[in-house]
Amino acid sequence: MTVELVTTGSELMLGRVLNTHQQWLCRQLADRGYVVDRQVAVPDTAEAIPTAVREALGRADLVITTGGLGPTSDDRTRELLASLLGRELRHDPAVEEGIRRYFTSRGRPVPDRCLIEALVPEGAGVLPNAHGTAPGLAIRVEPNPYRVGGVPSLVIMLPGPPRELRPMFLDQVVPIFTRELPPPGTFVCRTLRTTGLGESWMEDRLAGPLAGLVADGLEIGYCARVGEVDVRLVSRGDGAVERVAAAEGIVRREAGDHVFGVDDENLESVLVRELTAAGRTLALAESCTGGFIAHRITNVPGASRVLRAGLVTYSNDAKRSLLGVEGRTLELHGAVSEATAREMAAGARRATGADLALAVTGIAGPDGGSDAKPVGTVFLAVEGPDGGVVRRQLNAFDRETFKYLTAQQGLMMLRRLMGGGGGA
Amino acid sequence: MTVELVTTGSELMLGRVLNTHQQWLCRQLADRGYVVDRQVAVPDTAEAIPTAVREALGRADLVITTGGLGPTSDDRTRELLASLLGRELRHDPAVEEGIRRYFTSRGRPVPDRCLIEALVPEGAGVLPNAHGTAPGLAIRVEPNPYRVGGVPSLVIMLPGPPRELRPMFLDQVVPIFTRELPPPGTFVCRTLRTTGLGESWMEDRLAGPLAGLVADGLEIGYCARVGEVDVRLVSRGDGAVERVAAAEGIVRREAGDHVFGVDDENLESVLVRELTAAGRTLALAESCTGGFIAHRITNVPGASRVLRAGLVTYSNDAKRSLLGVEGRTLELHGAVSEATAREMAAGARRATGADLALAVTGIAGPDGGSDAKPVGTVFLAVEGPDGGVVRRQLNAFDRETFKYLTAQQGLMMLRRLMGGGGGA
Repeated sequence: MTVELVTTGSELMLGRVLNTHQQWLCRQLADRGYVVDRQVAVPDTAEAIPTAVREALGRADLVITTGGLGPTSDDRTRELLASLLGRELRHDPAVEEGIRRYFTSRGRPVPDRCLIEALVPEGAGVLPNAHGTAPGLAIRVEPNPYRVGGVPSLVIMLPGPPRELRPMFLDQVVPIFTRELPPPGTFVCRTLRTTGLGESWMEDRLAGPLAGLVADGLEIGYCARVGEVDVRLVSRGDGAVERVAAAEGIVRREAGDHVFGVDDENLESVLVRELTAAGRTLALAESCTGGFIAHRITNVPGASRVLRAGLVTYSNDAKRSLLGVEGRTLELHGAVSEATAREMAAGARRATGADLALAVTGIAGPDGGSDAKPVGTVFLAVEGPDGGVVRRQLNAFDRETFKYLTAQQGLMMLRRLMGGGGGA
Repeated sequence: MTVELVTTGSELMLGRVLNTHQQWLCRQLADRGYVVDRQVAVPDTAEAIPTAVREALGRADLVITTGGLGPTSDDRTRELLASLLGRELRHDPAVEEGIRRYFTSRGRPVPDRCLIEALVPEGAGVLPNAHGTAPGLAIRVEPNPYRVGGVPSLVIMLPGPPRELRPMFLDQVVPIFTRELPPPGTFVCRTLRTTGLGESWMEDRLAGPLAGLVADGLEIGYCARVGEVDVRLVSRGDGAVERVAAAEGIVRREAGDHVFGVDDENLESVLVRELTAAGRTLALAESCTGGFIAHRITNVPGASRVLRAGLVTYSNDAKRSLLGVEGRTLELHGAVSEATAREMAAGARRATGADLALAVTGIAGPDGGSDAKPVGTVFLAVEGPDGGVVRRQLNAFDRETFKYLTAQQGLMMLRRLMGGGGGA
């Protein structure tokens, strides 16, 4: 089974807009066992669109296009593909009726130019648009003049706006391709999310234990991001579920509590869930991360149940007045020190009454480093009712990477202080 | 000039990762007069990568690949392209030295498998990686066996992690292609960044005044994002500089202080610059934005000169104890109210001694709304030595959009309180 995506839009070529269709569609398809083989994005031109689709038809069983079905002059996909496939465009009264209903039900006049959306290529299936006016189109190309042996292809044309495309795909497109192109067997994909271990460490450590499963058809992929490595476990056919489960067991055994979640989970949502379950509250005292840890935690719905407050004490004055850090500590050890981090964490608990506190103080750079404490040096302290831990790290990266990595380390220390994730 | 991008990575095909390279690279290229013609994304396989690059070589003067240069078994771009182009891989001692330095300077052992990154295709230029270990590679394919007439192509191979790719592109790749493939004449592109005005308002308002310049060859593009509209002004050939300058004058006249910056400037960096120039200090009191405003401000190098502290007072207790908001105010008006916002701003100034304060309190959702104060309601207060302003907004969006839009509004209010940006 070969699947290709063709996204169209000149704005994509100027880089003014982020293309989110590719990830979304790939994810939806992969979760159903259809792995996309190629993604192509082209501008809205009379050469680029038919060329890209013709090439895709030469290779793929399923071709999905996005964009270019609307009413404006740069919406040309319908017309260009009808011409490529030698299909006449015919007026579809039911589609026109739907367009008229869309506008009249909103008390708006029907723009004449929207009626072009009622033109349907001969033989195409119409996918009504519940959130807009341009319907999607499904065309079975059989025989397929662009493929060796005339092997048929299914072409699905989707509108560009995500709020139109996504429900149309889920409600109407999935039933079509799962019926017309049934998957060849079981497909299992599970992603384990880890933090605190490098990609190469992981691969070295896992290659041996996973070798037997790989020989039986397990596929492993590593995806490294700042402070995180995803381990993707895929298998197909008979025994796929068992192979992936066995592999997950091995990864969890080798990587221990560095595995913080699966699939779409992130570290902050796991921490908020664990704090909520334990009935514990949290306070943050951030210097060099500048509110980023509070931001991540407050992105999680329900964070208000656990987060008492965050204090972004960027200046020494603020460390003293808001957190009660001793002037003597700052003088003797400096603002970036184990002692200051410890007093910040203790002060944050005291000032807010929270059960647990995380404090970070460091040198984000680009200036402010010294030989003893180079740029990237950071002290992280966690403290709870039963004591605390301080760690020194060197996160010598650009400012945003520094913040992200420091946040990962701090969130991980909080999980360990709570006994989360199965040990220290 | 034809430019194509080939991004590689099986994780892209499973939809595990959002491909941000395409937008970023297209933007950087387009702003320099090189508009990308096609973007292709393929998995890390021995068939897909060489096929995609061979096809691109058949059409493009400049081919940029991303990903697959790292140390793991799915990093195959270097080896596959060396083979496609008939170049031997040779060990480069200088690259190895750089890899060793990268690890030893961080106090970490050098993983053996990283040494594969020291293999360089014969004749390739090495682009040192300032933020990682895998260097980029530049290969001039001349004669180009895949293109009619053997027309040469320039292939640039970049590492996958954005924090490695981006500085490498800006510092090393831009000089290479602007030298080897100079643009065909003057090209001027200037993007004016605005906040607080809608895309259609902008287009309606600007169409008339800009018509004459458009007739002379000015191109205008609008790009709307959350809380921002970019106005992109492009012109080519003789008089391009003057046309774009005249257009900028018109946009600034019509949009006033809603124009906050140009090109890559963001609102937080403009604000930090203005505060620094005015010698003013700032404090933040955030409830519903949860530290996001502090995060944005502390992303700006030099923010420590202006930001005294940020207080993320998520709970009512924290609003009382850290900011001195009156219990009576919270009872009478609620935590999400004009009175609370005002007291939060005053309290933040008092607690930190800052000249200016911004306070936000609102209902991010998904829960907590009422008829009188639906989800998305937010009160923003700014206060300085000469008084303050409070605004009520309805930002009824998902959580992250809510935070971003609220932050934009707050930063804009601070600029106006300072008299920045040329008026209220």
